[in-house]
Amino acid sequence: MRQAGRYLPEYRATRQRAGSFMTLCQTPELACEVTLQPLARFPLDAAIIFSDILTVPDAMGLGLSVVEGQGPQFARTVRSHADVDGLKEPDPEIELRYVMDAIRLTRRELAGRVPLIGFAGSPWTLATYMVEGRSGSDFGAIKGMLYGAPDLLHRLLERLATAVTRYLNAQIAAGAEVLMLFDSWGGVLADRAYTEFSLRYLARIVAGLDRRGAVPVIVFSKGAGHRAVDVAAIGCECVGLDWTVDLGEARRKTEGRVALQGNLDPAVLAAPPAVIRAEAAAVLESYGKGPGHVFNLGHGITPEIDPEHVAVLVDAVHGQSRALHR
Amino acid sequence: MRQAGRYLPEYRATRQRAGSFMTLCQTPELACEVTLQPLARFPLDAAIIFSDILTVPDAMGLGLSVVEGQGPQFARTVRSHADVDGLKEPDPEIELRYVMDAIRLTRRELAGRVPLIGFAGSPWTLATYMVEGRSGSDFGAIKGMLYGAPDLLHRLLERLATAVTRYLNAQIAAGAEVLMLFDSWGGVLADRAYTEFSLRYLARIVAGLDRRGAVPVIVFSKGAGHRAVDVAAIGCECVGLDWTVDLGEARRKTEGRVALQGNLDPAVLAAPPAVIRAEAAAVLESYGKGPGHVFNLGHGITPEIDPEHVAVLVDAVHGQSRALHR
Repeated sequence: MRQAGRYLPEYRATRQRAGSFMTLCQTPELACEVTLQPLARFPLDAAIIFSDILTVPDAMGLGLSVVEGQGPQFARTVRSHADVDGLKEPDPEIELRYVMDAIRLTRRELAGRVPLIGFAGSPWTLATYMVEGRSGSDFGAIKGMLYGAPDLLHRLLERLATAVTRYLNAQIAAGAEVLMLFDSWGGVLADRAYTEFSLRYLARIVAGLDRRGAVPVIVFSKGAGHRAVDVAAIGCECVGLDWTVDLGEARRKTEGRVALQGNLDPAVLAAPPAVIRAEAAAVLESYGKGPGHVFNLGHGITPEIDPEHVAVLVDAVHGQSRALHR
Repeated sequence: MRQAGRYLPEYRATRQRAGSFMTLCQTPELACEVTLQPLARFPLDAAIIFSDILTVPDAMGLGLSVVEGQGPQFARTVRSHADVDGLKEPDPEIELRYVMDAIRLTRRELAGRVPLIGFAGSPWTLATYMVEGRSGSDFGAIKGMLYGAPDLLHRLLERLATAVTRYLNAQIAAGAEVLMLFDSWGGVLADRAYTEFSLRYLARIVAGLDRRGAVPVIVFSKGAGHRAVDVAAIGCECVGLDWTVDLGEARRKTEGRVALQGNLDPAVLAAPPAVIRAEAAAVLESYGKGPGHVFNLGHGITPEIDPEHVAVLVDAVHGQSRALHR
């Protein structure tokens, strides 16, 4: 998840300097700067490029704005075949060049210290924002399309799968060393609908990546941990899991075919340091000994969290993980 | 889930006559009237008493109001040991007598046509509203308590388990023939936390019911379908499942030890009749032949739904279910 954010005073300073969230995303020097900020504070094992999953629908012509406290909003929504046909096919090195430049710049600044993670939203998750037009909706419009006009939704998802595949391939070319696919709203889908409207397009993207065997892909379908075995089968190297899932059980079910990423409840970071250490230990122990566990939160760090608590967590994970694997 | 609601014009008329949502809940004649409204329209197999899970915290002294479009709000929140100690112990036949009177009246009006379902919220779910003070929060306050002051939260949950047990036993005495426990926010809990802060108290309530073997209990932990086997083990007769779960898989895992209730995505009701029929059939087929399936939505019916679509669903479930079991 995003390592940078409003819980860091240095992030708030850069964010204020940028003026708007979108300017922060679209100015490679600033995006690089906030990407590196958490690494200056904490001995993290990887960096994740500072960006937003909604850069892709923005580049397709929907007009994204992010209003503080209200979340993202689009100037236009997608509700008809004409709307889908009217979407642009962004060239990642033109309309999304600011992301590629931020990746190139950050790779250079990192100088090999830790790997850099690139990412994109899943077609289903991007489609929910594009059809609803804003966050915080009850998914009435997108589900109306899913059940009432499934062909229209498939057409939108196909266009998104193509755009996301190109976007991620451009990120690889720009220097991303790991890729993550965020299916943040996969968990609102009915069981069969998840397979048809989310998983199918995640699989198509993974199959379309030009990875030359060297760029691992993590797929995180939030709220869909009970589908981990199915996600593991689409060709990704790692499956992200949220905090509702028992890592040990997911490990047994996926039988070592993929690595697992997760799964501390980010709310733990508000608790006293002793609790943070105990909960981190419980996550590590639930996975158990042996390779294949990438420790992670299932959500970004919320603004009220004390950065010292993040330091406690990173230290606990490193110390306890070494002890567990000794 | 609630069968009555704003999708029915006759409900909206009674609701307007009542003046407020709380008056509707607290006037037995009106609560009985809206409980029976869906049965006059649709050949349903059961009735569920019209009420709200937050009547219990209201009776404990928190001052509930329901503002149209904003959801429920409490005048006071629970954040300290003093707050927990200050909660009243409601006598269901005094502070919640309006619910018991509504059950008695509705049983008389039903005259045995269909069974009447009573219900309550789970301690964890009630606690989230009592600690946050309103709906739509990000669960920051209750999770802060869970990780930072677990003893305080356990004390609150214990008091709620006692109050809910007494409340449900009074509903049985008043004539409820089936009971349902709604754990609407069980799905936001981390895996171990679910066991400790939700499931434990659900089990305590089920064990404390004076059912004389004749009142089946349904437990519905929304978003926690992957824990169905654990829910099945607490002594309930039926486990509710939301639409994200495959009923057939849940049936195999629970090995016939409980009935299963679910699990059509309520968004399907906005789709054309042919889609409603197909999706209902898919739910029935996912469960398969044999006894133990209670068809249900995993959420109340939303206001924009055409009542004719509900008629299509009820007809489809009856017709297809008979064909499947012939």
